[in-house]
Amino acid sequence: MRIGVDVGGTTVKVGFIDNYQIVDRLVVETKKETLFDDVFTAIKDYVEKKNYAVDGIGIGLPGHVVGTCIDKLPNVGIENLELKPIVAKYFPNVKLACTNDANAAALGELLADDNKKASAYMITLGTGVGGGLVIDGKVRDGSHSNCGEIGHMFVDYVHNYKCSCGLNGCLETVASATGIVRVAREYQKQFKTSLTGELNSAKEVIDAAKQGDPLGLFVLDYLSDALGRAISIIELAVDVDTFYIGGGVSNAGDILINKINDYYQRYSHYAVKDVKIKRAKLGNDAGMLGAAYLW
Amino acid sequence: MRIGVDVGGTTVKVGFIDNYQIVDRLVVETKKETLFDDVFTAIKDYVEKKNYAVDGIGIGLPGHVVGTCIDKLPNVGIENLELKPIVAKYFPNVKLACTNDANAAALGELLADDNKKASAYMITLGTGVGGGLVIDGKVRDGSHSNCGEIGHMFVDYVHNYKCSCGLNGCLETVASATGIVRVAREYQKQFKTSLTGELNSAKEVIDAAKQGDPLGLFVLDYLSDALGRAISIIELAVDVDTFYIGGGVSNAGDILINKINDYYQRYSHYAVKDVKIKRAKLGNDAGMLGAAYLW
Repeated sequence: MRIGVDVGGTTVKVGFIDNYQIVDRLVVETKKETLFDDVFTAIKDYVEKKNYAVDGIGIGLPGHVVGTCIDKLPNVGIENLELKPIVAKYFPNVKLACTNDANAAALGELLADDNKKASAYMITLGTGVGGGLVIDGKVRDGSHSNCGEIGHMFVDYVHNYKCSCGLNGCLETVASATGIVRVAREYQKQFKTSLTGELNSAKEVIDAAKQGDPLGLFVLDYLSDALGRAISIIELAVDVDTFYIGGGVSNAGDILINKINDYYQRYSHYAVKDVKIKRAKLGNDAGMLGAAYLW
Repeated sequence: MRIGVDVGGTTVKVGFIDNYQIVDRLVVETKKETLFDDVFTAIKDYVEKKNYAVDGIGIGLPGHVVGTCIDKLPNVGIENLELKPIVAKYFPNVKLACTNDANAAALGELLADDNKKASAYMITLGTGVGGGLVIDGKVRDGSHSNCGEIGHMFVDYVHNYKCSCGLNGCLETVASATGIVRVAREYQKQFKTSLTGELNSAKEVIDAAKQGDPLGLFVLDYLSDALGRAISIIELAVDVDTFYIGGGVSNAGDILINKINDYYQRYSHYAVKDVKIKRAKLGNDAGMLGAAYLW
């Protein structure tokens, strides 16, 4: 039995995985002070109860991770923490592998697509924009454990909004949930729109777009343009088979995926027109599944 | 003995390589009709004369290659040619591996830097702009054998020049030898410059820049800006240790490399500021050396 752990800001999801299927689950509340002890106590109790034989444990973490050492998890508030000794207290002789949560999700989506040795990029459109890269079935953390930080690619030379990272024009400034609200506010007065009040959530903009609202459609079009451009560039740099689009914003569904594909066709190099750009299908399960196959 | 072959538009360079050192060389004229028979006849004769034991042969090719099959070499005029049976006529039981010439050069530079398991990007600034990627010591051809075609990354939104590939604003339109001439012509009248006549070569612009000519410096600055931007984006997408800058334009030397580094510092994400951007040092030998270590 492989164990995949997906650490999030509010809950930690644990999957017990056999032959690429999640056969059992646990959910543990994310408490900064006792997080990993809470999680591994719960896992150990469960494993003993079920009499599972554990082959190894993989962990996807929302932040910067170097090997099995956490550098920084901004939304959890944990820094500089080596996980090996903590896990070894509960599972002394079990393999441990860690990575960024977007990398784990990228691998999870590939596995669910039955593309175990393929190459793919996962793009997560949430509060920010994250990314994960799998090359020939293996997660790439990168030389600085920073691979996939594509939210900070320069793409928007039109508005060139200031990003939280200190740069300007980053993909994240227009293609994240925050970016959707930002662009919608900027253009609110220029459209005959049902979105007349104070705009605070990406969901209301996306819902309006789905109903055909002109402002909603404009904003969705704007972020699809930025994403089509970004994907065309990433593809030249690393040449993968598939891009998976996940995260809350991807709930916009076909209307978003189709627009991104249209812009990709406009901006992409002739040799890579057949790249697949798909909606991620596993949702919250991708991270657990991918984490369990890191080794 | 490993044999590395670097196929170019005018000559084919052959290196006989032992323990990462080129110990012997051959140069064969590039004749489209008889190219590979000419090359392997010459290699076979030489190997017999020297009584070398051949471990394997690697070939770097100037175009699109899939496995050991040439798809297209535009500057040589060869298409759709499987190399395995041709090589087997001369060396029946010898390993054969092929890749794009920029990939081979990337690996060659890493090997010369004694970074055998590191990750690097090679950027070749010649008539066009090419690129090659090595991940953990292994060349990446990519899912469409198109990895490294970064000359067609969108970066220049100011002029948005039309590129030979059909797109606009590609890196190559400003950062290649052709691009240098293009930008210099566009700004020729705006500077007090020694470059007063009809501009036809990148070399005269680079030479003028080295002498402090304002137009020459402006053009070099412009392409360094585009390259600094491109490198900052590629680094987010794939996260390597080192970028090597090669090709004829790199003969501009330190002035160019320093400018690219300055722009990289301006545009790059805080987590990857310490990426190394260096001038490729092997010149024409990089392709041979890298090709010999493809397997």
